[in-house]
Amino acid sequence: MSTVRSVSVPGVIAAVRERQPLVHCIASTVSMALIADGLLAAGARPMMTETVTEAPALTGVADALLVNLGTLSADGALGIPPTVAESVRLGHPWVLDPTAIGRAPVRTPLARGLLAHAPAVVRANASEVLALAGEGAGGRGADSTAPYEQAAAAAGRLAAAHGTVVALSGATDLVTDGTQQVRLSRGTPMLTRVTGTGCLLGGLVAACAAVAPPVEAAVAATAWLSVAGERAGRTAAGPGSFRVGLVDALCALTPDEVAEAVHP
Amino acid sequence: MSTVRSVSVPGVIAAVRERQPLVHCIASTVSMALIADGLLAAGARPMMTETVTEAPALTGVADALLVNLGTLSADGALGIPPTVAESVRLGHPWVLDPTAIGRAPVRTPLARGLLAHAPAVVRANASEVLALAGEGAGGRGADSTAPYEQAAAAAGRLAAAHGTVVALSGATDLVTDGTQQVRLSRGTPMLTRVTGTGCLLGGLVAACAAVAPPVEAAVAATAWLSVAGERAGRTAAGPGSFRVGLVDALCALTPDEVAEAVHP
Amino acid sequence: MSTVRSVSVPGVIAAVRERQPLVHCIASTVSMALIADGLLAAGARPMMTETVTEAPALTGVADALLVNLGTLSADGALGIPPTVAESVRLGHPWVLDPTAIGRAPVRTPLARGLLAHAPAVVRANASEVLALAGEGAGGRGADSTAPYEQAAAAAGRLAAAHGTVVALSGATDLVTDGTQQVRLSRGTPMLTRVTGTGCLLGGLVAACAAVAPPVEAAVAATAWLSVAGERAGRTAAGPGSFRVGLVDALCALTPDEVAEAVHP
Repeated sequence: MSTVRSVSVPGVIAAVRERQPLVHCIASTVSMALIADGLLAAGARPMMTETVTEAPALTGVADALLVNLGTLSADGALGIPPTVAESVRLGHPWVLDPTAIGRAPVRTPLARGLLAHAPAVVRANASEVLALAGEGAGGRGADSTAPYEQAAAAAGRLAAAHGTVVALSGATDLVTDGTQQVRLSRGTPMLTRVTGTGCLLGGLVAACAAVAPPVEAAVAATAWLSVAGERAGRTAAGPGSFRVGLVDALCALTPDEVAEAVHP
Repeated sequence: MSTVRSVSVPGVIAAVRERQPLVHCIASTVSMALIADGLLAAGARPMMTETVTEAPALTGVADALLVNLGTLSADGALGIPPTVAESVRLGHPWVLDPTAIGRAPVRTPLARGLLAHAPAVVRANASEVLALAGEGAGGRGADSTAPYEQAAAAAGRLAAAHGTVVALSGATDLVTDGTQQVRLSRGTPMLTRVTGTGCLLGGLVAACAAVAPPVEAAVAATAWLSVAGERAGRTAAGPGSFRVGLVDALCALTPDEVAEAVHP
Repeated sequence: MSTVRSVSVPGVIAAVRERQPLVHCIASTVSMALIADGLLAAGARPMMTETVTEAPALTGVADALLVNLGTLSADGALGIPPTVAESVRLGHPWVLDPTAIGRAPVRTPLARGLLAHAPAVVRANASEVLALAGEGAGGRGADSTAPYEQAAAAAGRLAAAHGTVVALSGATDLVTDGTQQVRLSRGTPMLTRVTGTGCLLGGLVAACAAVAPPVEAAVAATAWLSVAGERAGRTAAGPGSFRVGLVDALCALTPDEVAEAVHP
């Protein structure tokens, strides 16, 4: 098991800020604004369109693609497969966030099918990882109800079987490619009191994947959001001001501040 | 006419925080994020999906359902009737928020038809109550233009005729089951300067209806949002900071602080 | 070339606050909440619905229409043409915001076709203006990559050819009807770090167009958002708090404060 020290967190963050990757996001209606604001604050740029008539045609101008299945609309269900196909054809990294799969009859098989199309990273909570692996029926809504260590093991098997990287979110975050495994226990429970912070993490992973290999991208994005959450939590009066402070902190944190927090 | 004293406001709020009900929300695109953030801040959990292929299949994991007709999408128009039917079949409480009905040719008959499916609570402004009762042509957008006392009388008749509870929002809020009537004159006009606070009230009513009978749920939710609004209004520099403070206050207020404000 | 002095900025702002125009917005999912909150803060009122079954039927109650093509949904693509036609038939002013046109295969011809329906104002960045004029392939996502002066010249030709007013957004904002031209170099780069501020400008132009002629409306809205941005930027700790302060400032600024900033 490698440690987080092998990953250049500050290098990834600096590269996002310098290269300002354009991230095509097909995402939950409810978290779309936070993803977009978070990406802009971090230094990347968001692009959001999901229709089958436009998303595949436009994804070529982007540097990376995020496919988040939360609140999957009819437009999104039609638009996602050809958009992923086009993104893969162009060699762009793409990130799968299988939000709330498990019982969901459309997004669950969709997520499993998309695994065959080589996502750079799969970003999911414990219930979603188990559902993706066929080992669980999913959580309740966006919340995980699954045992963490079972999900951690499944994450490793999923990553190895599909040649991808799994970023498992929880009180401890885990990034694995099936061989190496990086764990981070940072952040704040307040991150679970604001809608879409997990979705935003998926977007940050995609932004980082545009400038770095998948494991480094997933670790850097996880550290970035976690440290931003810690900073926002220090002064927030509640979830409303925490959300505002989180976006501020994504912008204000220097690469070294994120790295110091990860390597104390 | 009973008074608010007969309703256990603090008990309902404490129960929401303890049981953290999962509220399935089919809601206006524009207010979805505020509803979700407000529910999370209050201690409940949101789940949002509206397609006919997924919403009816998923509503069973939730504890209550909110159907808000604002910005009714094609997905929502198809998905709402079977989702309500499934929720009713399972015995879950559901809340109807007939946003902006009146002139709207799809949502107006949809709202009237849904009344036959035993909503626990109907949350509406004066124009919407009158339009639902067939006594008015609706307001302008989300704003009411109707006379309040006429709407209050119509609310009582609607509640009695359909065996439901009507929560009429306005400068004075009114909750009635057709027999008893509770009025609350709290809150702040600032609540009308932020998009979706009425929609959020519908979501809070659904969260409370998951843990309490309809009249108590509607009164507790109304008091909760009103007192949170008053608290946010004390320090807000305008509608932007008011929205942030409102979400903070939904989280910070103790059950007794809400109750004290209601029973001074 | 006329100057900004010939336009009654404070008069337009005062009229929006007094008459509280109802603005029907068909807009990007990602920026809808900011548009609605910004319009409410400014003193106008938003109404948002885009389906072909409801949007044309409801636009008659509004005072102006905004058509923003960002994240164009299937609902929106169907609903926009008949809604614009009805708005024009009723003599309501409407504003076209051709977000991210260029490569987009549906919204690009849609935007060009809509130009024939006499928008009061076209609000666009340099890439979008050139794409609309058939002189460029568009930017990357919502960002402009086009040379500003080429776009300024194209804006004048577009305005003259279609009898409309073009409000070209950039570090310098330009408003032209093809004859007169007003330039404003205010605002703050922070406006580009928050999703949807350009979309909100489109909404403000529509609100102002409900109470004033197109050139005056576009100049007043541009000044209003720019000065609000400057005020928010003075105290913001980052893009999150900037967004909050922007909405606060749209509400707090007096007509004269906006005017003083424009005519120092």
